[in-house]
Amino acid sequence: MTAFTFSLEAADGRARAGSLVLPHGAVATPAFMPVGTQATVRALSPFDLRSVGAQMVLANTYHLHVRPGEEVVRRLGGLHDFMAWRGPLLTDSGGFQVFSLAGRRTVEDGGVEFQSHVDGGRRRLTPERATEIQWALGADVAMAFDHVVPGGADLSTAADALARTTHWLDRCRERHRALAADEPGRQTLWPIVQGAGHAALRARAVDEVLERGPWTGIAIGGLAVGEPKPVMYEILEATEPSLPSSIPRYLMGVGFPEDLLESIALGVDLFDCVAPTRIGRNGTAYTPDGPLNIRNAAHRVDARPIDESCDCETCRTYTRGYLRHLFIAEELLGLRLLSLHNVRFLVRLVAEARRAVVAGSFDDWRRRWLSQYNARGDT
Amino acid sequence: MTAFTFSLEAADGRARAGSLVLPHGAVATPAFMPVGTQATVRALSPFDLRSVGAQMVLANTYHLHVRPGEEVVRRLGGLHDFMAWRGPLLTDSGGFQVFSLAGRRTVEDGGVEFQSHVDGGRRRLTPERATEIQWALGADVAMAFDHVVPGGADLSTAADALARTTHWLDRCRERHRALAADEPGRQTLWPIVQGAGHAALRARAVDEVLERGPWTGIAIGGLAVGEPKPVMYEILEATEPSLPSSIPRYLMGVGFPEDLLESIALGVDLFDCVAPTRIGRNGTAYTPDGPLNIRNAAHRVDARPIDESCDCETCRTYTRGYLRHLFIAEELLGLRLLSLHNVRFLVRLVAEARRAVVAGSFDDWRRRWLSQYNARGDT
Repeated sequence: MTAFTFSLEAADGRARAGSLVLPHGAVATPAFMPVGTQATVRALSPFDLRSVGAQMVLANTYHLHVRPGEEVVRRLGGLHDFMAWRGPLLTDSGGFQVFSLAGRRTVEDGGVEFQSHVDGGRRRLTPERATEIQWALGADVAMAFDHVVPGGADLSTAADALARTTHWLDRCRERHRALAADEPGRQTLWPIVQGAGHAALRARAVDEVLERGPWTGIAIGGLAVGEPKPVMYEILEATEPSLPSSIPRYLMGVGFPEDLLESIALGVDLFDCVAPTRIGRNGTAYTPDGPLNIRNAAHRVDARPIDESCDCETCRTYTRGYLRHLFIAEELLGLRLLSLHNVRFLVRLVAEARRAVVAGSFDDWRRRWLSQYNARGDT
Repeated sequence: MTAFTFSLEAADGRARAGSLVLPHGAVATPAFMPVGTQATVRALSPFDLRSVGAQMVLANTYHLHVRPGEEVVRRLGGLHDFMAWRGPLLTDSGGFQVFSLAGRRTVEDGGVEFQSHVDGGRRRLTPERATEIQWALGADVAMAFDHVVPGGADLSTAADALARTTHWLDRCRERHRALAADEPGRQTLWPIVQGAGHAALRARAVDEVLERGPWTGIAIGGLAVGEPKPVMYEILEATEPSLPSSIPRYLMGVGFPEDLLESIALGVDLFDCVAPTRIGRNGTAYTPDGPLNIRNAAHRVDARPIDESCDCETCRTYTRGYLRHLFIAEELLGLRLLSLHNVRFLVRLVAEARRAVVAGSFDDWRRRWLSQYNARGDT
């Protein structure tokens, strides 16, 4: 199998079942990528990730550049060896992080100057630097450096950022081509479609990205960043028909179970989100009947697992009563066990979605699933 | 094999290699018990504990009584089921915790009234209650409720506490006999030898304990609680000859690698200590060359494992450079990985000590081991 190829195995409406071949393995899509911000998916080990069936992991270029620095990662064998995750990896470009996390920043066409959240030092990211850093990190997939604006950005702000993003894409591509010239099978670069909540801008973004192709994958960025959910789905619905069917579509930063299913229905193949581990650390666990707050007194002597249909270590081993105790007593094990379950839950969810696509029953299955999930409030 | 029997397989000087049969399995001694204060060894799962070869785990009666309460544990199947550790378990009596952790407390001959560290509520522990709580928790071994005084306590304070401890032992034994009458194979009760740093009191304590026997094991308490180390060894050395060789000797709250070896040399069979997990969470890892501070800048791009001779997941999988990054970046995974290694280190250490006892080379081996361990300072 040649790296960076994507094959579509089935489609059901807009929903797709595919297979993406990357240097470190194949990924059955739709797929959910857990987020390993600092080269570790919070509270989970690579063995944990494998045990819950995670296929591909995301790490954050901005965070790793700031700490420990890409040079440390490179000297320790690259990101795969560094974090001992030998499966497919994707790094974001740092664009989203710089625009959403970094303190003071100055954007000009050349790049972005920002203040590190770790040591307060001034640093500069350019399309070339972001590409070089990602090359040093060595993930299977690198992302183009983009100018991300808030979900509610007005037309002129969003158009300005889009123009910059397209210009930066040329520079990323050029730098990446030069770096990859000697090792073409090591890493691919994916562009990001921006344009905030403006359908016309999104259409322009797709055109500008595709003119610069071919690409081995395409990302939709700048969604799930504060805009109302219907806006996200409208944009997805309007954008999808103009995307080539021959490459995977990656919806960045999404999401919750219901978002995954709605987005798969709109033709998305790849997702990442910190939610399963973040809400897990807060004591919230996904179940087929909706999220469950494990701290709730109702679970005090409950001998059932979180989710009787789940096959993860947490559900096979521990009662709700014990998990509640771990959270009330502020024990570290609880953070890991709920993170583990939540990642497993999303991995199983998209795997089930895939089977439904292959079986041609996706829409029915999705409606049934969502109806059960939404039937009651949080307990 | 009958539960609560102990067989001595070899002795070398005072050092012993034995086997203790408990309802939930056999324990090869000398053995180190990781401490699961709140029914979880901090940051580690029962699978982790099994993977590092832990044979027996300790849990704290005081903590579990205060939160979640022994009734919750009992309703969730007892401590083994509750924490999903199906191997041998020991609970302390709460004596040490009440005297060292609880805030305001009032001791009288009937028992101790104290203020919960969790909710500030007034609670009362008596020998009978401590025994009943431990019976509800259901560990293989329960400990008698004792009056612990600081290591430097004067003769009159220590004598007073010892008299109370002996009186309480009668009451614990009586209550335990009544509880165990219908289920004699479920749990055994071990007495604790007190007497602070006063050899004469320790001798009296041993006499008083043995008069009340037979016992299936005997603990030495009130050491490693602030007294100088030579005092601890003097007391151990003076006490050991009067202990029956036919039952295991458990030195409570000890210890560091060097303490384990010195105490094994003085005839101790069983240990517990929070140190390996506590110092692990602080970024300190045991190595055969002494403790190592993983935060040290020297480890920044070090591709070696913490301990090349170690077979734990941490040492088989991660570099010092990556582990340092996890600690500098305050990632949860680091806490688990160093705890895992440190427990494995002590489990291997006592297993190696056992082999040396069987081989009749314990003293030589111990001297060599300590000489390497102490050869350099902390890096």
